[in-house]
Amino acid sequence: MLYLLVCTLAPVNARERLVEAAQDLLWERGYVGTSPRAIQDRAGAGQGSMYHHFTGKADLARTALQRTADRERAGAEALLSGDGTALERLTGYLRRERQVLRGCPVGRHAQDPDLVADPELRAPLETTFAWLRARLAEVVAEGQEAGELRADVDPAAVAAALVATVQGGYVLARAAGRPEPFEEATEGAVALLAALAR
Amino acid sequence: MLYLLVCTLAPVNARERLVEAAQDLLWERGYVGTSPRAIQDRAGAGQGSMYHHFTGKADLARTALQRTADRERAGAEALLSGDGTALERLTGYLRRERQVLRGCPVGRHAQDPDLVADPELRAPLETTFAWLRARLAEVVAEGQEAGELRADVDPAAVAAALVATVQGGYVLARAAGRPEPFEEATEGAVALLAALAR
Repeated sequence: MLYLLVCTLAPVNARERLVEAAQDLLWERGYVGTSPRAIQDRAGAGQGSMYHHFTGKADLARTALQRTADRERAGAEALLSGDGTALERLTGYLRRERQVLRGCPVGRHAQDPDLVADPELRAPLETTFAWLRARLAEVVAEGQEAGELRADVDPAAVAAALVATVQGGYVLARAAGRPEPFEEATEGAVALLAALAR
Repeated sequence: MLYLLVCTLAPVNARERLVEAAQDLLWERGYVGTSPRAIQDRAGAGQGSMYHHFTGKADLARTALQRTADRERAGAEALLSGDGTALERLTGYLRRERQVLRGCPVGRHAQDPDLVADPELRAPLETTFAWLRARLAEVVAEGQEAGELRADVDPAAVAAALVATVQGGYVLARAAGRPEPFEEATEGAVALLAALAR
């Protein structure tokens, strides 16, 4: 018990501070807009510490992106495997509270040409969206099997459209400088899903 | 006639070359990833020429973005005001041929924190998406009035979901490094729209 307490109170080490600083800055500024120096400054870590723990900016960014992707995936899974009918869980995914104007901490990086050109940096994006689409397709198929949703649509295509609506909702909100377009887009998807249920 | 021929053959002036180079580079690299020097190099224009025609990078970028936005809007309008039922035109918008892996030349900029923080630079994005959503909502309402689409959904919400699906489709395709996720997302939206029609 005392051991646990000591561990809890121990200062977060430099590696951990670097990863968390990179997560924040990547979300806020993107990969091309984030310098190694800015990460070190925010982490309160020196250049030597950064290059002790990581081979460089790409290595640190990959670690940070993977951690962000894992967090987002866990949040979506909790929602999709929770209580409720298939339609309720899909609606819950669309209406999940998000920091709309900050953009998606995973999807925002798809616009960065350097990041998508590097297979290792792109991997957390690719695997997260592949997983999310497959998971939503399972829930759509569950709803079809339960007779809750019409059976004459392709679950994978509907799932892709739902994930895309959320990602595009961020684009519309940030383009407008206000969160409402995100909500209008996701409510439109909720209405289209509801039409599948009737 | 000779006059027209001479005009056609006249070399494009430096201002025009700068705008076109900025349009290309902004699409490819984004605002933060595009330096004034890179634009000058691609345009074959000197720094003096750039600062003669524009007050700086932001001024040139705003002009280039507005031109790109006008072109995209004209393309969408030609499609949405063309022949066909409302459902056919909405489907045509979703299936319109696009350079998927290059991303949307307008929407990709919504992820750039410096661009969206500057109201003048953000304006071409905001006005283009506001116009597009309103125009698609008109077509959805036309389809409802004609008895082609169910009348119990909000045209503005459906329109927002369709625009978001296209914008999110780019995100999914670039995240995967291949165009298919864009097509799956837009085909999912086509299937959801078709369900509204039956």
